[in-house]
Amino acid sequence: MIFGKVALIGMGLIASSLAHATKWKGLAGEVAGYDRDPEVRRIAAEIGLVDTVCDSLSDVVRDADLVMLCVPVGVMGAVAAEIAPHLKQGAILSDTGSVKQAVVEAVAPHVPQGVHFIPGHPLAGTEQSGPRSGFATLFVNRWWLLTPSETTDPQALAKLRAYLEGLEANVDTMDAPHHDITLAVTSHCPHLIAYTMVGVADHVRRVSHQEIIKYSASGFRDFTRIAASDPTMWRDVFLTNKEATLDILGRFAEELFVLQRAIRTGDGEMLHDYFTRTRAIRRGIIDAGQDTDAPDFGRVSKQAGE
Amino acid sequence: MIFGKVALIGMGLIASSLAHATKWKGLAGEVAGYDRDPEVRRIAAEIGLVDTVCDSLSDVVRDADLVMLCVPVGVMGAVAAEIAPHLKQGAILSDTGSVKQAVVEAVAPHVPQGVHFIPGHPLAGTEQSGPRSGFATLFVNRWWLLTPSETTDPQALAKLRAYLEGLEANVDTMDAPHHDITLAVTSHCPHLIAYTMVGVADHVRRVSHQEIIKYSASGFRDFTRIAASDPTMWRDVFLTNKEATLDILGRFAEELFVLQRAIRTGDGEMLHDYFTRTRAIRRGIIDAGQDTDAPDFGRVSKQAGE
Repeated sequence: MIFGKVALIGMGLIASSLAHATKWKGLAGEVAGYDRDPEVRRIAAEIGLVDTVCDSLSDVVRDADLVMLCVPVGVMGAVAAEIAPHLKQGAILSDTGSVKQAVVEAVAPHVPQGVHFIPGHPLAGTEQSGPRSGFATLFVNRWWLLTPSETTDPQALAKLRAYLEGLEANVDTMDAPHHDITLAVTSHCPHLIAYTMVGVADHVRRVSHQEIIKYSASGFRDFTRIAASDPTMWRDVFLTNKEATLDILGRFAEELFVLQRAIRTGDGEMLHDYFTRTRAIRRGIIDAGQDTDAPDFGRVSKQAGE
Repeated sequence: MIFGKVALIGMGLIASSLAHATKWKGLAGEVAGYDRDPEVRRIAAEIGLVDTVCDSLSDVVRDADLVMLCVPVGVMGAVAAEIAPHLKQGAILSDTGSVKQAVVEAVAPHVPQGVHFIPGHPLAGTEQSGPRSGFATLFVNRWWLLTPSETTDPQALAKLRAYLEGLEANVDTMDAPHHDITLAVTSHCPHLIAYTMVGVADHVRRVSHQEIIKYSASGFRDFTRIAASDPTMWRDVFLTNKEATLDILGRFAEELFVLQRAIRTGDGEMLHDYFTRTRAIRRGIIDAGQDTDAPDFGRVSKQAGE
C-alpha cells in the first residue's frame, strides 16, 4: 500500500480505470470518488467503482494522501480553488490533463503551502468515456508523464512515481512546455486532423452518408475512432494548448500543399520517396513496443473458418 | 467449384489472400500465379501459395477462366496489353485496383472480343505486403465493389459475383466515376493525410524521433499504421485518381483552416459542436458492422493480471 486514501475527482474513463487499477494492485487503503454529475455518482455507487462515493469536493479530498484531478483541463482551476482549503498537509495533488502549462497556470496559484502539486498526464485512453468505461489494465506499459518544477519535493515525487509504477505505467518526467509541444505532435494535431476529415466526409454531397459508412474499412474508420473521443476534453485541449497546436497545424497545412502539388503535377518520384520514409517511422513504433505488429491492429482474424 | 482455372497476376497481399481463400472455399480447380519478381515467385513456390507458379504472363493466363490483375494501378495497362493475345475466349478478366476509371481507360482498349472485362476493387487490406502477407479470411464480410459497364454480359457478372460471394465478400456494383470519388473520401484522402502527419512529425526539430515513437500511443500511431502501406500502390492511386483526390483535399484544407481559426479565436462552442457531430458518424460505422466497438480496436486487454 502506498497511500492511505486516494481521492479521484471526476469519474470518467481515466478515474474509473485508476479506481480499478488501484484496487487490483492494492495501492491504497481507501479510494474515494466525486463527480459533479449526480447520475455519474449514482452509477459509481451502483457498480461499486470506489469505496466511498462523496457528494462534495470537500468530502472527497478530506484526509486524502493523493488527490487526482481527472476533470477536463478547462475546469482544473475552478476545482483546485474549491478543494484548496480542505487539502491535508503533506498531501500530493496531481492531475491527468492532456495539456500541462495551462494546468500549472490554473492550479498552482491555489495550492496551499505544505501540499505537493505534481502535474501529470497518462498517455492512455480509449474513445469511450464515463464511469463504466474504465478498466484496471488501461495504464499497463503506457507512459505516464510528470512535469515537476524545480521546487518539487523529491520525496513526494518518488512516492507518486511508485504509485504510478504500481499501476504498471512507465513514468517519465519533462518540463511542461516540452510536454505540450510533444503532445501537439503525437496527439493533439492527429486528433484535430481526424475530426476534420470526418467533418469533410460529412459534407460531401456526391457520396451519401450510407456509402461512407459502408465503405469506411478502407482507411476512414481509423479516423472516426479517434474523432469519437470526448468533445469537451478535446475542446479544452485545443483552447489551452493553442500555441503548440497552431504551430504544428501550420506546418501540416504547408506539407499537405506540397503533396497536393506533387499530385497535381504528377510527381510520382516525390510521392514514392515520401511514402517510403513514413514506413520507417511505423517500424520504430512497433520495435519500441508501442503498438502491435499484427496486421490492421489484429482486428482481422487469420483463422479460416472462424 | 465456380471456375476451372483462376490466374493471379502479381502475388502480393491481395493475390496471396485470394489464393488462400479460393483454396479454402474450393472455388477453383486450379490456382495459378505469376509475379514479375523472381524472388516473389520463389517464395510462392516455397510456401505452396498456388497450385502452379508460372514464369511468364502468357503461361499464367493460358486456359484461365478468371484472370485477376492484382498489380499496381500504374502497370495495369502494360500487363493487359501483354496478356491480351493469350486470353481464352469466354474468360473473365478482372482487377483489384483501388482506382477504377484509370484502370478502365488503361485496360479496356486491349481486351479482345469474347473476353469479359469487369473491373473490381476489394475494400480489404492490411498495411503489410508481399506473398507471405495473405490469409484466407481477408475478404470475409468486406465489400468488393464491381464497376461493370452498360455492355457487360450479365452471365459473366453473375459468375464473378458468385465467386466473390464464395470468398464471403459482400458485392456491390456502381459506376467507375462514383467509385473513384467515394474512395477518395473514404480511403485515398485519409491515407494522404496520414502520410502528411507522419511527415510533419518527422520534421519537427523540437521533439526527437525517439520521443515521437515513445509517446505515439496517444493518437499518432493510428496514423503511422495507414502511412506504412505500400508506397508504389499509393503513388499510383494518387496519380490516377488525381481529380477526385484534389477535390477532397481542397475541401479538407478549407475545413482545417476553419477549425484552426476557431482555435486561434478561442471559439470553444464551435469546436465542441464540431466534435460532437463527428461522434455520430463513428456510431454509424459500428452499427453497420464495419468496425469493432471494442475500445481502441480491441488493442487493449481488459483482463487484469494478463
